Amino acid sequence: MWGGRFASGVDAIMEAINASIGFDRRLYAQDIAGSRAHAAMLAAQGIISTKDAEAIREGLLTVLSEIEAGNFPFRTELEDIHMNVEARLKEIIGEPAGRLHTARSRNDQVAVDFRLWVRDQCDQAIEGIGALIRALLSQAEAGADWVMPGFTHLQTAQPVTWGHHMMAYVEMLGRDMGRFQDARARMNECPLGAAALAGTGFPIDRHATAAALGFDRPTANSLDSVSDRDFALEFLGAASICAMHLSRFAEELVIWSSAQFRFVRLPDQWTTGSSIMPQKKNPDAAELIRAKIGRILGANVALFTVMKGLALTYSKDMQEDKEQVFDAADSLMLALAAMTGMVDKMTANRAVLAVAAASGFSTATDLADWLVRTLGLPFRDAHHVTGSLVKMAEDKGCDLPDLSLAEMQTVHAGITGDVFTVLGVDNSVRSRQSYGGTAPDQVRAQIARWKERLA
Amino acid sequence: MWGGRFASGVDAIMEAINASIGFDRRLYAQDIAGSRAHAAMLAAQGIISTKDAEAIREGLLTVLSEIEAGNFPFRTELEDIHMNVEARLKEIIGEPAGRLHTARSRNDQVAVDFRLWVRDQCDQAIEGIGALIRALLSQAEAGADWVMPGFTHLQTAQPVTWGHHMMAYVEMLGRDMGRFQDARARMNECPLGAAALAGTGFPIDRHATAAALGFDRPTANSLDSVSDRDFALEFLGAASICAMHLSRFAEELVIWSSAQFRFVRLPDQWTTGSSIMPQKKNPDAAELIRAKIGRILGANVALFTVMKGLALTYSKDMQEDKEQVFDAADSLMLALAAMTGMVDKMTANRAVLAVAAASGFSTATDLADWLVRTLGLPFRDAHHVTGSLVKMAEDKGCDLPDLSLAEMQTVHAGITGDVFTVLGVDNSVRSRQSYGGTAPDQVRAQIARWKERLA
Amino acid sequence: MWGGRFASGVDAIMEAINASIGFDRRLYAQDIAGSRAHAAMLAAQGIISTKDAEAIREGLLTVLSEIEAGNFPFRTELEDIHMNVEARLKEIIGEPAGRLHTARSRNDQVAVDFRLWVRDQCDQAIEGIGALIRALLSQAEAGADWVMPGFTHLQTAQPVTWGHHMMAYVEMLGRDMGRFQDARARMNECPLGAAALAGTGFPIDRHATAAALGFDRPTANSLDSVSDRDFALEFLGAASICAMHLSRFAEELVIWSSAQFRFVRLPDQWTTGSSIMPQKKNPDAAELIRAKIGRILGANVALFTVMKGLALTYSKDMQEDKEQVFDAADSLMLALAAMTGMVDKMTANRAVLAVAAASGFSTATDLADWLVRTLGLPFRDAHHVTGSLVKMAEDKGCDLPDLSLAEMQTVHAGITGDVFTVLGVDNSVRSRQSYGGTAPDQVRAQIARWKERLA
Amino acid sequence: MWGGRFASGVDAIMEAINASIGFDRRLYAQDIAGSRAHAAMLAAQGIISTKDAEAIREGLLTVLSEIEAGNFPFRTELEDIHMNVEARLKEIIGEPAGRLHTARSRNDQVAVDFRLWVRDQCDQAIEGIGALIRALLSQAEAGADWVMPGFTHLQTAQPVTWGHHMMAYVEMLGRDMGRFQDARARMNECPLGAAALAGTGFPIDRHATAAALGFDRPTANSLDSVSDRDFALEFLGAASICAMHLSRFAEELVIWSSAQFRFVRLPDQWTTGSSIMPQKKNPDAAELIRAKIGRILGANVALFTVMKGLALTYSKDMQEDKEQVFDAADSLMLALAAMTGMVDKMTANRAVLAVAAASGFSTATDLADWLVRTLGLPFRDAHHVTGSLVKMAEDKGCDLPDLSLAEMQTVHAGITGDVFTVLGVDNSVRSRQSYGGTAPDQVRAQIARWKERLA
Repeated sequence: MWGGRFASGVDAIMEAINASIGFDRRLYAQDIAGSRAHAAMLAAQGIISTKDAEAIREGLLTVLSEIEAGNFPFRTELEDIHMNVEARLKEIIGEPAGRLHTARSRNDQVAVDFRLWVRDQCDQAIEGIGALIRALLSQAEAGADWVMPGFTHLQTAQPVTWGHHMMAYVEMLGRDMGRFQDARARMNECPLGAAALAGTGFPIDRHATAAALGFDRPTANSLDSVSDRDFALEFLGAASICAMHLSRFAEELVIWSSAQFRFVRLPDQWTTGSSIMPQKKNPDAAELIRAKIGRILGANVALFTVMKGLALTYSKDMQEDKEQVFDAADSLMLALAAMTGMVDKMTANRAVLAVAAASGFSTATDLADWLVRTLGLPFRDAHHVTGSLVKMAEDKGCDLPDLSLAEMQTVHAGITGDVFTVLGVDNSVRSRQSYGGTAPDQVRAQIARWKERLA
Repeated sequence: MWGGRFASGVDAIMEAINASIGFDRRLYAQDIAGSRAHAAMLAAQGIISTKDAEAIREGLLTVLSEIEAGNFPFRTELEDIHMNVEARLKEIIGEPAGRLHTARSRNDQVAVDFRLWVRDQCDQAIEGIGALIRALLSQAEAGADWVMPGFTHLQTAQPVTWGHHMMAYVEMLGRDMGRFQDARARMNECPLGAAALAGTGFPIDRHATAAALGFDRPTANSLDSVSDRDFALEFLGAASICAMHLSRFAEELVIWSSAQFRFVRLPDQWTTGSSIMPQKKNPDAAELIRAKIGRILGANVALFTVMKGLALTYSKDMQEDKEQVFDAADSLMLALAAMTGMVDKMTANRAVLAVAAASGFSTATDLADWLVRTLGLPFRDAHHVTGSLVKMAEDKGCDLPDLSLAEMQTVHAGITGDVFTVLGVDNSVRSRQSYGGTAPDQVRAQIARWKERLA
Repeated sequence: MWGGRFASGVDAIMEAINASIGFDRRLYAQDIAGSRAHAAMLAAQGIISTKDAEAIREGLLTVLSEIEAGNFPFRTELEDIHMNVEARLKEIIGEPAGRLHTARSRNDQVAVDFRLWVRDQCDQAIEGIGALIRALLSQAEAGADWVMPGFTHLQTAQPVTWGHHMMAYVEMLGRDMGRFQDARARMNECPLGAAALAGTGFPIDRHATAAALGFDRPTANSLDSVSDRDFALEFLGAASICAMHLSRFAEELVIWSSAQFRFVRLPDQWTTGSSIMPQKKNPDAAELIRAKIGRILGANVALFTVMKGLALTYSKDMQEDKEQVFDAADSLMLALAAMTGMVDKMTANRAVLAVAAASGFSTATDLADWLVRTLGLPFRDAHHVTGSLVKMAEDKGCDLPDLSLAEMQTVHAGITGDVFTVLGVDNSVRSRQSYGGTAPDQVRAQIARWKERLA
Repeated sequence: MWGGRFASGVDAIMEAINASIGFDRRLYAQDIAGSRAHAAMLAAQGIISTKDAEAIREGLLTVLSEIEAGNFPFRTELEDIHMNVEARLKEIIGEPAGRLHTARSRNDQVAVDFRLWVRDQCDQAIEGIGALIRALLSQAEAGADWVMPGFTHLQTAQPVTWGHHMMAYVEMLGRDMGRFQDARARMNECPLGAAALAGTGFPIDRHATAAALGFDRPTANSLDSVSDRDFALEFLGAASICAMHLSRFAEELVIWSSAQFRFVRLPDQWTTGSSIMPQKKNPDAAELIRAKIGRILGANVALFTVMKGLALTYSKDMQEDKEQVFDAADSLMLALAAMTGMVDKMTANRAVLAVAAASGFSTATDLADWLVRTLGLPFRDAHHVTGSLVKMAEDKGCDLPDLSLAEMQTVHAGITGDVFTVLGVDNSVRSRQSYGGTAPDQVRAQIARWKERLA
């Protein structure tokens, strides 16, 4: 493969550390698409004959079908997917195969292959996120007015609605979608034609190959083209944030399905039993989703560490890019699919949610707001009065609505019976009409906006 | 501060772990801007009186000037910047200060403060990157046709030009700029009015405060608004990639200024001496720039780890966000400024570059291409012939142009004297006319495109 | 400082990126101790006069007292702690100060200073962990037989005891202690005398300075001595694992103090209130402890990234080591202290724990084991029978002990009334007598072992 | 597998995210060893019959040989290696297979399997490091007195020897060995018998199984036993530091084999050619070794992130531990083997090293030391004089020994002809006799110490 340069063979350990065919075979479709576009351009520019180009393009389709049929003989000694495809092409079409490598190098070839693959994954991530958003919208629509406790610090803070909580994740996922879209747009430039690093003297047409492969334009600097892995890092960054969102939701599902919370019932298909404890119904899928941020962030760190301090242009270090991105992409797609499946089938325990929403002095803020609005107290003073009333209720072992008016008036004489209208959970939720607030009308407006956006 | 709820005081260790005023004081300008916008809106909506709003807005300006004059008494027992500002406001204007906190919470207050700060840093990063690009364009323009070795694997591969190499970094930095722009656009939504987590029953106008603070719109879900730190993570992601680019350039400067390379002379201002070795001229600035990816990536990992698995909505864990972002932003801005200073003043050693460009069989690819173009060999065969010629030259201890025609013809009989025209470095460089290639014309075209883009 | 080598001054940005006095002043005591040991050795070896050595050693004590009194004039233009101390020494004692730098360099000086500092932090970590273990032992001793649910997947699995759960953290912390001890032992070699990188021709006695500073021996290779930061990385690794343990315990405390769990009551001093929700009692300290793994792991990643791919020996990149380790060490000590404070004062809610322990079919495994032991069923069959009984109870809405014998016998005819003896929680816990099991006797044996170990 | 608990089947996505047999099959030998030890103990304790135990132990050997022969039918629907082995055992020996799971759970089973695997990897790492140390000792011995430039900041600092430089890596690797030894000792406790989490009521003998599997003792807390992954993290930490060392050496090899440095010639077996540039001899193995720190550190971060904030005891998140450790261990062993192969065969270019050592004013420190020793100047003054002499030589375009005595005396009148004795490179190197210094005698003493240590 490397011509007459080497006197001695390559050591077995060298083969093990050097060969990438074990993982980069996954780029076969991209590699063949890139080569077919390159061959067509070479012929259009008169660099190779149309006949050779046709032979190459047809032969590559044969290779493609062999790989997809599972009977392609991958060979480790050919090191990578590029050489495997080309060697097989030569077996199939003979001499013209040798003309395919004109005006290109493995450096720009792998750059275009991998970029095409990552671009596809952006599309798949966007699709997977869309499916999860739709599942969340269904949950949100069903429960736009189901009350549940809103938590800060995992302490009951104020009543909110189930739909509002689901829509919080829709917002996060919407941003994730935007990040994948931006990353896709930025990476959509074609490195093919950068050749080894300096460009080429052959009269190639880089705009033609770029267009043939669905790129917006060719890359503008050949050195950068073969040494750039930003697109992989940006994909990993977007994937890491998305996985972080999933980890938060998964954590909630684990907590919510505990015997102590019982907020939600996970579908049997997404839970497992125990080999020793027959009664267990474990939220395994949720836990595995929660964990995926680990390997995705790990892949992100791995590639940053690899790229750190590499002199231009291509160095073999960069071969470490693919396995990290492959694994992170697979993990993300799987986590999105599993979460979608769970959200689709999970059942909120409305009764438990409602009881929990009403406990823990959850309408204390409503009381404070009433003091501001009705009695004209500065908020800080209202806060203090409310704190004293909460302490009184706590000492009595009751909740706020259970205090008598007389008791309340010992804390602040101006309190009237009207106060009881704001201490109910449903009233509390309905009152939060600020844009993006938890009032069912607001939640439904956001659901409608999202449906339109996705349509 | 927390009303009548707590019987006992807060422990000293608790104060140390809990207080954020030591670092979040840095948000003072954003905090005051947010409060002033909130007060104006409260009055416009009739929630507080215009007189109170005016007192608040004026009082906040007084606080601002005290802080900027350096005579504001920050107090740790007041925990954070929000309480410090509000407490001082109360001293200045009395009772109306207590009305400022109507219809908001520290949860949405800190969210808006920090988002404003990060938004500013996006702008600063874009500006800093712009300055560095301009410095690189100057270098590229001066040396659009200075030949130097293009490296892969730090081995001489093909001759390229100094300008082309500089422009590779311009492309990287251009993508960095795009990432900060995208991040800025995505984060430019105003969380103010989300209150603690559920929105509020006061008739606030979130669109008004959003507009007053330069946001495109209010956020659409109050739970998400107080638990979202995506904007910080996306900033750190963009900063990490940018710092990675700087680490690569810095690595090159360190290598290039070694006694063995001598490709570049760094300006005295950006190097240091040794306390024991008087002759040393150390590229300290380049090394420190190279290292900054460490702390920026570390900050990125830190915030991901903090956010992993946090149940909604706000948890105190999220207080760990600020120091990481502050440090990463400072590090990035400093690294950009230092690199700009170095690029501005560094001197390429043209003579050394030219000699290096011509050595190491750097035009072997040109020879192979000549065999393809002129003799019609398939590239793979041409590659093999070239390999044999390189080996012959290496064995003789000479370079390719030093082989005689007769010697060459022992490897391939078809070679003619015309081959010597492509073995010169300048010819090689000029021939790489493919779009984005290293030919000086191509480099100048890219410089022109960038100047236009930045104008 | 750098002699006559530099024509022009150092730029302000250069000063900002280059100077370390802002953080390395923290090494003042170590720097002075190292210099005093070096001066004594130089005199003992006859390299400088005893009189000069005495002047230096006395002068350094004066500098020390100035720094500790807070009236030492730190100057950024002197770059680092070493030059600040030396410059001041020269002001105090004059010419002999210049002899202190004989046979050493800032490279070995900073290496010894930082190593001394990290060594101290190992000792502090060991002490802090010891205090937390003691607090846990007190909790464990009090509650060696308090039953609570043992969880896997946050689902009730089997009853365990409070003491047993506390002791799980003692084991983790015991390993943490071992890691800091091992790290301390490995780093306890003195780099002083490596000079810039090559050693020195002065007849120094490295064993003497090593002994004077409490090291076990001098380092064995001068190049390694000035380029090694393993000790910092190993410290960060041990700290990261310890912080991970704390994050798990903190997570449990957050969940346990939720309204739904109510397993534990956190002391008022370690919780905070809300600015808008007066009833809140937030586990802020626990959340902040949970978050500390973020910045400590971030520091770990930062230093690895910095060190990656650095050619020997010292490079300025390595200056980035200190802030990361300082921050990680401070964070760890603070988290340990806060956790110790919380554990010391927190109160288990025994009644709630007992009820929870008995619910959720928690003794199903005991039932399965009874079937194996008493009826001789293979475990897998016993597991299946138990599963059917759990399903029967679940369908009836009762727990296992509430099933009648007749009902049980419909699933397996061999079951006898004796089975009810193993369905009680206390019996279950007492029965787990395997070494390290949850039986109170086992727990007490482990407490005793730990008390002895710590004594 | 989970008894009668589940009504519906498991979804395909659930199977994909949940099943671990794709990777944990790698634990087959450990799983079978653990089960065999458990069965023997159960019989010895009278918990199962000797006959059943014998059937189990024999059957497991059959399973083992099937797996090793490659004809074991792994089934994804059986989820993991434990269930695959047990199911096959049942096919082979029938009913007694069901008794194997008495008094244990998959939780302690996987804990012991994985711990055994990681323990083996510690041994393999120690062995791999030992081989690399031996290769370095050979290089060091051959070149104990070959001079080369010692670098700081990649600038020539002082002359050192090739042997001294090789021995710097021996020191690093020696610490790596110590870390793996310490990790191994700490992890060498047996979790078997912890059962699901609480221990068991069967009268098992945990000390017996621990001893049978080569552990020092059983673990002391059953909850900790099934939720602990410290051993994996500590392994990853030690591996990360070792990989960092390798990245530094690999970086040096890449730089040293550049055309500009030519310090070393890498063996053909460890380099590769280019598909487009026939003359290239790329240090691919060195680059790939340099990159491995990326995936190993990534694995480290991944597992920390997974473990962060997990409530006790076992959660399914922890299933993410194995692939990370598998990949990191494989990467480390491969990198060590590849580096050993390269070091074994690489050739230092003595002539180039010697010339480089003598250039760049590399004996300036020797000159400064001479001024201190001979003329009694304080070091700081000597440093200044030397700086002026370096500047004079630089201005003249010569090196220090090329200055005349008269020229030198214009800078300091006291300089005598004796000064020229210290300006030679060999003298310089020989003079650095301090312990661990670069003098060939010192280097040879360290080589001898290491040979003894390894013997």
